[in-house]
Amino acid sequence: MIYFDNSATTKPYKEVIETYQKVSEAFFGNPSSLHTLGKEAEKLLDQGRDQIAKLLQANKKEIVFTSGGTEGNNLAIKGTALQHQSRGKHLITTKIEHASNYEAFQQLENLGFEVTYLDVDQFGIISLEQLKSSLREDTILVSVIHVNNELGSIQPIKEIGDIVKKYPKAYFHVDHVQGISKVPLSLQHCHIDLCTISGHKFHGPKGTGVLYVREGIKLFSLFTGGVQEHNLRAGTENIPGVIGLAKALRMSMEKYVQNKSHLEQLRDYFIKSLNEVEGVILNSPIKEAAAPHIVNFSLPTLKPEVIIQSLGEQQMYVSTKSACSSKLAEPSRVLMEAGLGEERAQSAIRASFSYHNTIEEVDAFISALKKTVLQLKEVMR
Amino acid sequence: MIYFDNSATTKPYKEVIETYQKVSEAFFGNPSSLHTLGKEAEKLLDQGRDQIAKLLQANKKEIVFTSGGTEGNNLAIKGTALQHQSRGKHLITTKIEHASNYEAFQQLENLGFEVTYLDVDQFGIISLEQLKSSLREDTILVSVIHVNNELGSIQPIKEIGDIVKKYPKAYFHVDHVQGISKVPLSLQHCHIDLCTISGHKFHGPKGTGVLYVREGIKLFSLFTGGVQEHNLRAGTENIPGVIGLAKALRMSMEKYVQNKSHLEQLRDYFIKSLNEVEGVILNSPIKEAAAPHIVNFSLPTLKPEVIIQSLGEQQMYVSTKSACSSKLAEPSRVLMEAGLGEERAQSAIRASFSYHNTIEEVDAFISALKKTVLQLKEVMR
Ligand SMILES: Cc1ncc(COP(=O)(O)O)c(C=O)c1O
Ligand SMILES: Cc1ncc(COP(=O)(O)O)c(C=O)c1O
Repeated sequence: MIYFDNSATTKPYKEVIETYQKVSEAFFGNPSSLHTLGKEAEKLLDQGRDQIAKLLQANKKEIVFTSGGTEGNNLAIKGTALQHQSRGKHLITTKIEHASNYEAFQQLENLGFEVTYLDVDQFGIISLEQLKSSLREDTILVSVIHVNNELGSIQPIKEIGDIVKKYPKAYFHVDHVQGISKVPLSLQHCHIDLCTISGHKFHGPKGTGVLYVREGIKLFSLFTGGVQEHNLRAGTENIPGVIGLAKALRMSMEKYVQNKSHLEQLRDYFIKSLNEVEGVILNSPIKEAAAPHIVNFSLPTLKPEVIIQSLGEQQMYVSTKSACSSKLAEPSRVLMEAGLGEERAQSAIRASFSYHNTIEEVDAFISALKKTVLQLKEVMR
Repeated sequence: MIYFDNSATTKPYKEVIETYQKVSEAFFGNPSSLHTLGKEAEKLLDQGRDQIAKLLQANKKEIVFTSGGTEGNNLAIKGTALQHQSRGKHLITTKIEHASNYEAFQQLENLGFEVTYLDVDQFGIISLEQLKSSLREDTILVSVIHVNNELGSIQPIKEIGDIVKKYPKAYFHVDHVQGISKVPLSLQHCHIDLCTISGHKFHGPKGTGVLYVREGIKLFSLFTGGVQEHNLRAGTENIPGVIGLAKALRMSMEKYVQNKSHLEQLRDYFIKSLNEVEGVILNSPIKEAAAPHIVNFSLPTLKPEVIIQSLGEQQMYVSTKSACSSKLAEPSRVLMEAGLGEERAQSAIRASFSYHNTIEEVDAFISALKKTVLQLKEVMR
């Protein structure tokens, strides 16, 4: 099996599942309970929180456990808007956000908020000038995706943070779901107030995530009911999930440190080899603006579903656009907004790597792709 | 270890953890992905949904997977209120709801909704007359807990459903978190529109739950972003969690069928034995209005934390009030609302059973409790 769909989801590490299992059995108590079983569970939860805080160079009071990236984005965005609307009702985001972010803003528009959606260039990057001219006295939130999940474009988060910081009423939220453990990001240095990550994107358990919430920030809770997660997110804690997430994050960040250039090598080799495939057009940006683990390309005139199906029969897995919208017929919103045109946006394929993929897998994949494309063109002739 | 705190949380079944582990490894694909791995994951998810729907005698389109009971309650209540406010802004609930329900209503009051909190009698039961006189043309939701998590009181859900049904604009939500697999409830028969359950209360995985949403009901999504869960709850699905939940639900419901009277026997024996403990007052209702797995009693003048601590040293686990508020100093809101007075509400202890507890455990527990009480009274003399 060649799995190049790591931006959709990853296979959890064996160690993560083992941890999940051990914690489920040995620490099943409710951390809110007063007895020893509760206290032991609470202690373990606290250790997990501490470990994650350290990995993110944050304070453990700033770590809010969630059920994933979608919850994190929704809590950050709606939580800010609904809590702080008396300060202003203007919000800023970009045109290439993940649906969980994008649709939260659309819901807020229906509730009377005004949203500016920043344009992006052909590489999927916003203009800092447009950001500057969009910021207003009543702007209460700027929300930007770090690494785009379809193109792999990296936004200039530090520069954006420096600009937003001049507006003390505006919080800065970053969707770091695709970036974490692959493209470094300093929460402090970039003046980030809220930051979303999701466990299943880095070999952690499904249904787990973290929302970083800078100390002192109040949010309108989507889940009320208990004082868990610093009063921001009620509900009995999923401790096996949290400890599994902590383990996956540590392991993935270690992979980054030990083997930083591996993903870049894979990507560069993939892009080079892609040139051998007839009719291919690269959609992902190149150089600094590109994440090391995502390559998006189009094969105009060919149906991507058919290519994916044919590769799938050979146990090679890639995707069209973002997983959660891959069943919708429309062309990719992100590619359209980057001005790549309908033909490319209709025929895009995304390969996304993890540290475990190899050059040999790229070779095997490209040769299968070449054959598939030739066969399809044959049929269509 | 004698674990009588099953209403706080339960130990997951071994089989549930094994299932979780197998699914995590073999079905890690994103069900939204177009390739085989995605399709296999999607198929398994669908089977899980189908199995749960059958167990709840519902349609699989009515099953929405959540991260737990708190999410289910919040989604049902805020989702109804925010979506249907143009029909009316009046809501009805009771004074003895779980915090996740209660606080959702308080948040809605801040957003301009009007909430009627129904009184309860000394057994924790509402008055159908007060419900009738509270219902109005602009009532859009009636939300009632089935089995109260502190007292074990069972509300007359069928009678309530019959009354609410006469108001076609009002939805009927039931918090069935404590009742499921212990006190039967027919969604159809009781005219229930929305019903919350939570995996970790019946030996399922933490961070999992189901909100039953009657077909055709629209809710304001707390999580937007993808078409998952019939467009009501976006986010990459936690398939190992779902399949674990399905297994736990099936096993727990089988336990009910095979061994229905076991919990009642435990409870009755527990209550009888409790008479031997000096100064004990029973708070739970008796007979039909009482759930078989919860016994709440007070030891006035003694501090419950101290008793719990002392029993905990002997590896016997019970709790004071609901786990999520057990660290708050106030007397139990539920017991206060039932009119049991501050002394009893301050000194309450809850024992809650699962099908795995035994008569021998009750014997051992009661004799330990007797000793503890004697010792404490000695010290205080
Ligand atoms: C950039 C981005 N943000 C948010 C999400 C949502 O995360 P989750 O799948 O954990 O809900 C995803 C993936 O689905 C993503 O790629
Ligand atoms: C009656 C009741 N409703 C809701 C909940 C919340 O469920 P969860 O712990 O899964 O968030 C609980 C338990 O905490 C409960 O006892």
